[in-house]
Amino acid sequence: MSLDEDITPGSIRPGGRTARVRDAVLRAAGDLLAEHGFATLDLGEVAARAEVGKTTVYRRWRTPAGLVADLLADMAETSLPHSDTGTLRGDLLENARLVGKTLTDPRQGRLFRAVIAAATSDDTAATALHTFYDTRLREWTPCIEAAITRGEIPAETDPRAVLSAVSAPLYYRLLASGDPVDEAAMTAAAEAAALAARNGVFTFAAKKSTD
Amino acid sequence: MSLDEDITPGSIRPGGRTARVRDAVLRAAGDLLAEHGFATLDLGEVAARAEVGKTTVYRRWRTPAGLVADLLADMAETSLPHSDTGTLRGDLLENARLVGKTLTDPRQGRLFRAVIAAATSDDTAATALHTFYDTRLREWTPCIEAAITRGEIPAETDPRAVLSAVSAPLYYRLLASGDPVDEAAMTAAAEAAALAARNGVFTFAAKKSTD
Repeated sequence: MSLDEDITPGSIRPGGRTARVRDAVLRAAGDLLAEHGFATLDLGEVAARAEVGKTTVYRRWRTPAGLVADLLADMAETSLPHSDTGTLRGDLLENARLVGKTLTDPRQGRLFRAVIAAATSDDTAATALHTFYDTRLREWTPCIEAAITRGEIPAETDPRAVLSAVSAPLYYRLLASGDPVDEAAMTAAAEAAALAARNGVFTFAAKKSTD
Repeated sequence: MSLDEDITPGSIRPGGRTARVRDAVLRAAGDLLAEHGFATLDLGEVAARAEVGKTTVYRRWRTPAGLVADLLADMAETSLPHSDTGTLRGDLLENARLVGKTLTDPRQGRLFRAVIAAATSDDTAATALHTFYDTRLREWTPCIEAAITRGEIPAETDPRAVLSAVSAPLYYRLLASGDPVDEAAMTAAAEAAALAARNGVFTFAAKKSTD
């Protein structure tokens, strides 16, 4: 039975059905993005794979970029919680491994490359992508705050700058240089970010002085 | 006169004409990529804007990805030479500013996002992109070698890892987080990379120990 066929009233909650349609559509969209990228993403094909009526998909998501935006919103909701190893270096290494694991996962890595590609040419997708990273970076802010409390790093450290510094080398490998996103890269990313944080490179004051 | 019309033999060297056709086609391809991204890049449109016959463009470049690959090869050839400020921090700051200037230039920034998007879904474009970064990173290797000679950083430092660390945070801002690629970001990128290099984070030995 297709997910948007009429259902006997009362047999399934309307909210439940709506949520299941969204799940099926986003799963299909994610699969197609991972398989073929953003350039060829087609709403009709997504509908067919999700076994949902075309009209439903066009009405609710409107464009491929609209679908990418909702997929990113969904991905942000399922963001993994931050770690608490007791040291900044330990927490940043966990963070680097989490990011690295995502980018090297066959489906996830290709999906990330596809949504980033979408964001390069579409403002709706770009806004959704930035919101996704806002959520991801905010989730790990307590690690930086704990390091400040422990006196490991300056009080005026910018958490977003530290966490971006951990992710950045891994994304650069995935998207630009093509170098492997391996354990050595994850360790170097975490160590370099921890060192720089300890030395005050990522303080708001350092940022302000160059504005 | 269109660039691929027949030209009186002897009036212009054949190599010169071929080079001019390539220049015109790559300029048009770059403009269209910067304006509309990779997804809609069309060889016929490139030919029209370059005032070159469609057949010439299809025969020589075959696909939009083929055009992106040749554009990247051309961009690598015009790579800017490395600086020599006398300190690693100084050279890395110059490198960060050069990368930052490219990524924030309206045409160049959009062009880079477009070719990176192309590389996410096409192997030919991806290979060309990696070769482009090989060239760019190699061009600046003497700065790292000079820092080793001066005794600023360990002898077994991996130049590519240091230089990637400078570029990475700027690319992460452009492609993922959407944070501004500003002077503060460039300074932090250079300082963090120099600090990590001085502390042996980017040595081949450090890399090997985690393999």
